Amino acid sequence: MRSERDFIRRLQQAATRKRDDIQLDLGDDAAIVTPPPGRHLVVMSDALVEDVHFRRRYVPAEAIGHKALAASLSDCAAMGATPRYCLASLAIPPDAHALAERIIAGLLALADRTQVALVGGDTTASPGGLFIDVALIGDIAPACAVTRAGARPDDFVFVSGTLGAAAAALRAFERKLPPDPAAQARFLFPEPRLKLGQALAKRQLASAMMDISDGLSTDIARLCEASRVGAALEAEAIPIAPAAAAIAGSPEAALHLALDGGEDYELLFTVAPKQVPAVLELREQLAGEGVQLACIGRVTEGAAVMLRLAGATRPLQPGGYDHFMRSP
Amino acid sequence: MRSERDFIRRLQQAATRKRDDIQLDLGDDAAIVTPPPGRHLVVMSDALVEDVHFRRRYVPAEAIGHKALAASLSDCAAMGATPRYCLASLAIPPDAHALAERIIAGLLALADRTQVALVGGDTTASPGGLFIDVALIGDIAPACAVTRAGARPDDFVFVSGTLGAAAAALRAFERKLPPDPAAQARFLFPEPRLKLGQALAKRQLASAMMDISDGLSTDIARLCEASRVGAALEAEAIPIAPAAAAIAGSPEAALHLALDGGEDYELLFTVAPKQVPAVLELREQLAGEGVQLACIGRVTEGAAVMLRLAGATRPLQPGGYDHFMRSP
Repeated sequence: MRSERDFIRRLQQAATRKRDDIQLDLGDDAAIVTPPPGRHLVVMSDALVEDVHFRRRYVPAEAIGHKALAASLSDCAAMGATPRYCLASLAIPPDAHALAERIIAGLLALADRTQVALVGGDTTASPGGLFIDVALIGDIAPACAVTRAGARPDDFVFVSGTLGAAAAALRAFERKLPPDPAAQARFLFPEPRLKLGQALAKRQLASAMMDISDGLSTDIARLCEASRVGAALEAEAIPIAPAAAAIAGSPEAALHLALDGGEDYELLFTVAPKQVPAVLELREQLAGEGVQLACIGRVTEGAAVMLRLAGATRPLQPGGYDHFMRSP
Repeated sequence: MRSERDFIRRLQQAATRKRDDIQLDLGDDAAIVTPPPGRHLVVMSDALVEDVHFRRRYVPAEAIGHKALAASLSDCAAMGATPRYCLASLAIPPDAHALAERIIAGLLALADRTQVALVGGDTTASPGGLFIDVALIGDIAPACAVTRAGARPDDFVFVSGTLGAAAAALRAFERKLPPDPAAQARFLFPEPRLKLGQALAKRQLASAMMDISDGLSTDIARLCEASRVGAALEAEAIPIAPAAAAIAGSPEAALHLALDGGEDYELLFTVAPKQVPAVLELREQLAGEGVQLACIGRVTEGAAVMLRLAGATRPLQPGGYDHFMRSP
């Protein structure tokens, strides 16, 4: 069996990139880094647990590493921040030792593409399942970060991309059906919307923003609660992923996947009316990169989140994932 | 069952401290913080896994939270850095839900004492054991951080405190014997040597430093490897904890606990000859706070780590804990 020291040594070889802002990386008690001066730090962490967030049966090791970093990168995108450094802690069961390097390879591939340096972490045995926790440090210009709390009545509600693709792939995997390839890619290798988040934050176009990780119905409720507002969404405007429509069997079921499915890692944001033209311009610029933006409703006074469907308006219940309440 | 949102809300209430350097803490996609300008960031993380690092049978929930943060604080101390912010990710099995708040309470008690703010993290279910990962961000003046790599031949080797107490308590727990109270406290609520580490770094008294988490025999080998030196330790000079001597049954067994026991969370550091007087002065200052310092040997050329015991010199084999190789 390989030792922790050997693993860390190989990690060092894989992760070492000379960067002026990194004085010391893997292999000492801590890493020493110097982010750009004059900016605020943005810090967050996300944990993935085997058989809660993924099953090894259908999530390859590289995707486990990718998804673990992508979850934090998506949070970073939702603040409008630039990611810089990450720490990865891995607990590895005896039957998964061979996976550890592939998990890190998946994480490093995404880290490289997003200019994130893996500077530390921890590796340990696990008598239970596989566990990975990624802490991410980014930075942002003062006063530019976009929180969940800034939505105001009459703001427009936008989402990026399409919703329900990851949930469609998950459903196919759970039923042991071959998933739609595009949906499978979205589920296994989600692409955090860093450029979009940074563009919205830099131009101060979004009044509130968060990423959709637990399902639109759950996350819009969180944004509204943080902003002390309500929302009225239009079912017809919600961008349902084609794969969700295909696997769902009915338009209602497809809408349910898009509203409640989770793991979309798209951005949900609100825009004051006067900023809408600038957002629509940004949409044109981003369309060339394959990122679409949809306006799905308005912010309202009060606290209710409503959905209008076929002329009728009903309360939209949070139907997404609560990590304490359910298993996948 | 309680929901994740409720748990986070209670966490926010428990953790909220107004601090000028924290713009946004728990409850959004990320925290926003502004560490003091002109300093380098020091970042690290440590994971504790149930039945690898602790057993719930003898480690109370508060101690799990304390130990998880203490492990990172000890790394921070070993760099000489000042800890500022932490993120805690928890994976909680169904039968441990009631423990989550006590784990966080234990973490927050130590965080408060060390002026560390809990600014984020993640909470999730775990189908296996309990898992906690703490990422810590600290800072240090440029060029003051002490790495493992600076030891030079003829430097003196020092350790803080006494060694083997945590291992003695662990042995008692595993044998279902009542542990020595002082050893139990060291095992359950280790005290990171932040002041000592910071004093050594600020005055640039240590040429290399690390914390002893996996046992002196293992960690001195790591320091020597990083510094490309050897060491000659004097067995008689190693400060064996009284509880280790009491449970061991023989002087050889007591020495083994002190060398190989692990979880000491003391500092191991090397001192150039001309700095020894200043370190001895510091020792007098720290004695009032109950932190003793022992000189246990010299740094040598070459790569061998030797132990002199009763006139005979033998190689000191790393006998400590490798998280990939063994269970406790």
